[in-house]
Amino acid sequence: MADTRSVVAARRRTERLQAALREAGWAAALIQHPRDVFYYAGTGQPCNLWVPAEGEPVLFARRVEEWVRQDSLLPQVIGAASFGQMRHHLAERGLLPREGATIGIEKDVLPATLVESLGRTLAGYRLENVAPVVLNQRLVKDDIEIAAMRAAAGLWAEVHAGVLEALAPGARESDVAASALGRAMRAGAGPEIYFRRWDGTGAAGRVVASGPNGWRISGPAFTVTGVGFGPAQPWGYSDRVIGEGELVVVDFGLYRQGYHADMTRTYAVGKPSARLKDLWDRLVELHQAVIAAIRPGRRAAELWEVARKHAGRAGYADWFMGYGPNQGQYIGHSLGLEMDEPPVLGPGADQELVPGMVVTVEPKFIVPGVGAAMIEDEILVTPTGGEVLGTVEQRLFEVT
Amino acid sequence: MADTRSVVAARRRTERLQAALREAGWAAALIQHPRDVFYYAGTGQPCNLWVPAEGEPVLFARRVEEWVRQDSLLPQVIGAASFGQMRHHLAERGLLPREGATIGIEKDVLPATLVESLGRTLAGYRLENVAPVVLNQRLVKDDIEIAAMRAAAGLWAEVHAGVLEALAPGARESDVAASALGRAMRAGAGPEIYFRRWDGTGAAGRVVASGPNGWRISGPAFTVTGVGFGPAQPWGYSDRVIGEGELVVVDFGLYRQGYHADMTRTYAVGKPSARLKDLWDRLVELHQAVIAAIRPGRRAAELWEVARKHAGRAGYADWFMGYGPNQGQYIGHSLGLEMDEPPVLGPGADQELVPGMVVTVEPKFIVPGVGAAMIEDEILVTPTGGEVLGTVEQRLFEVT
Repeated sequence: MADTRSVVAARRRTERLQAALREAGWAAALIQHPRDVFYYAGTGQPCNLWVPAEGEPVLFARRVEEWVRQDSLLPQVIGAASFGQMRHHLAERGLLPREGATIGIEKDVLPATLVESLGRTLAGYRLENVAPVVLNQRLVKDDIEIAAMRAAAGLWAEVHAGVLEALAPGARESDVAASALGRAMRAGAGPEIYFRRWDGTGAAGRVVASGPNGWRISGPAFTVTGVGFGPAQPWGYSDRVIGEGELVVVDFGLYRQGYHADMTRTYAVGKPSARLKDLWDRLVELHQAVIAAIRPGRRAAELWEVARKHAGRAGYADWFMGYGPNQGQYIGHSLGLEMDEPPVLGPGADQELVPGMVVTVEPKFIVPGVGAAMIEDEILVTPTGGEVLGTVEQRLFEVT
Repeated sequence: MADTRSVVAARRRTERLQAALREAGWAAALIQHPRDVFYYAGTGQPCNLWVPAEGEPVLFARRVEEWVRQDSLLPQVIGAASFGQMRHHLAERGLLPREGATIGIEKDVLPATLVESLGRTLAGYRLENVAPVVLNQRLVKDDIEIAAMRAAAGLWAEVHAGVLEALAPGARESDVAASALGRAMRAGAGPEIYFRRWDGTGAAGRVVASGPNGWRISGPAFTVTGVGFGPAQPWGYSDRVIGEGELVVVDFGLYRQGYHADMTRTYAVGKPSARLKDLWDRLVELHQAVIAAIRPGRRAAELWEVARKHAGRAGYADWFMGYGPNQGQYIGHSLGLEMDEPPVLGPGADQELVPGMVVTVEPKFIVPGVGAAMIEDEILVTPTGGEVLGTVEQRLFEVT
């Protein structure tokens, strides 16, 4: 079923993981997180993927073994509903490591009770966190991934079209969100976006924030968050009626066949005031300056420095990436199979940019009592610079 | 800001947790999961809620302290961005338990690395899993919660209207999903639904499964799953074009201001065949028989027994709740702040039904090569029986 290029890519990915395991002196990795399983094995079905430091990986299908067999990019698929059954199979084939060996598991996403249960099944082994290894590997996208991310970013044009269809004085933020998401879904977007952090919420990727909601910064991140629908979920779009002369920030995440897009545009309802126009114009200059600074060899922290200095020169230092106690120090982040992949591009991020990385650049000026403007694009690091993956123009869209 | 009834309810909820802690001999609970924090404290902002076995709970705001103070139903709010700051505050006020005491944390949802980090901050204490206590308490909804769940279930009428608007021969499953979700969002639904289990996916609550996709059962659950968009996320709506004479199952979860709805209806495109009509008619009889069996004092497992026997008598035993290796043994589950609250109503579920519980009843007949029919309602257990919370008729809707 699977095409040759995908099979070769999966082999290359698992071989790189194996090399990292050998370097760390670990005996194996047990990959369970659905996004990581998909990365190495090509299926999002519930599976436990056993990757020994040497030898063939084994994909244990917890359910629907035939479906897994059909989608898997790895040759060895075995049905095993439980950890116990998996251990039994490994023991039977002589694949269990020697006692005392280290096995890597994704401790950053697996709940503590599951790790405790696994500890009982794999008693005698040291279970260490393999997530940093996996995420470091996922940081650099291969050609198949870049094509998938380009397609996801392209889909954001549907969000934009959906916004333009619904946005008008008197429309609600929820009308705009529904129109944008509806168009994206009809064009192939999934219903959900995926965060790695345990308390990530999809509402953070469905932001429509108009007028004063643009400067009400809620808990989850130092950005334009929107206010949502009351205390239970105080972020994302609300049912606020949008007024004439307001700026509306639309920060939407999209999921398409495994990969995410994360883009933002700001819309002006009616003619924006000179003040709001200036806010936007300075923002886009900053945005483009940061994008122009992207090239292999640069450190991630340098992009933050470019942005920070630019905001200062523009006179917006106090409103750049938030304000007061809600001012963040970053200019973007990596993304791919998840919305929130490391690193965050901020001070101290010593990750060097390398070709194949995809990062967001997402400056915002948030001025209480005035308005919020934000723009966000995804940039692919190429051998010579940075390439914007999306197709929507970098301008303030005026809607009347 | 908060109304008196909500404040009283929050006090009653925390007092019940405290009674359970005392009974277990635990010194305190540290509640961090956003849905649980909302349950006890009334805010979905990032917080750590300290509930001692005796004395006043303290809500530590990890971010936006003022916003938390405004929404909180508990009087004591303190800003503390980290575990370390929280510990410092507790120590300063003499609120740290004696060394060796047990502190309950939500080990079923907290990732292992976070629990390890907490273990370092709270060295000298035993950290035990408090989730069963919290979930047992959440099982019985109070009046405020019942009103919220009734409103969420009522919103499903928008899903139904959205399906009727979009469904026709030649429409895609994604068109139907976008129309249904769009209407619900415009009427106040949030963008996401929340599962407790770590690998729960929102796609499982955005199912549109037409014709043959009705009997392709994917990995996450023994139900009508749909097939999604390829291997990365093989469940939920797909872009399949819906044909004349097919059954279409729409199983949608909804989120409204903290609480979920989970309902399903089946739609016939064109005139259904006699075989499909019979499938549906037997299903609804079973559905209504199970609902009629709901009353306080019944054990959850008995509902499963009623359903199983009814399916046998109807001649559909082999296709009830799936088929072959993908046949499940359950008839519903509890829900509320999360889509997947315990217990599952299946064999061995010795939970007694008590007034205030809300459970789904969701029978399905899945016949390969023929079709799938499913219906799902939420039932509130009342002092005298069961009350259906939604408003959409329990019939097969024919669309031409």
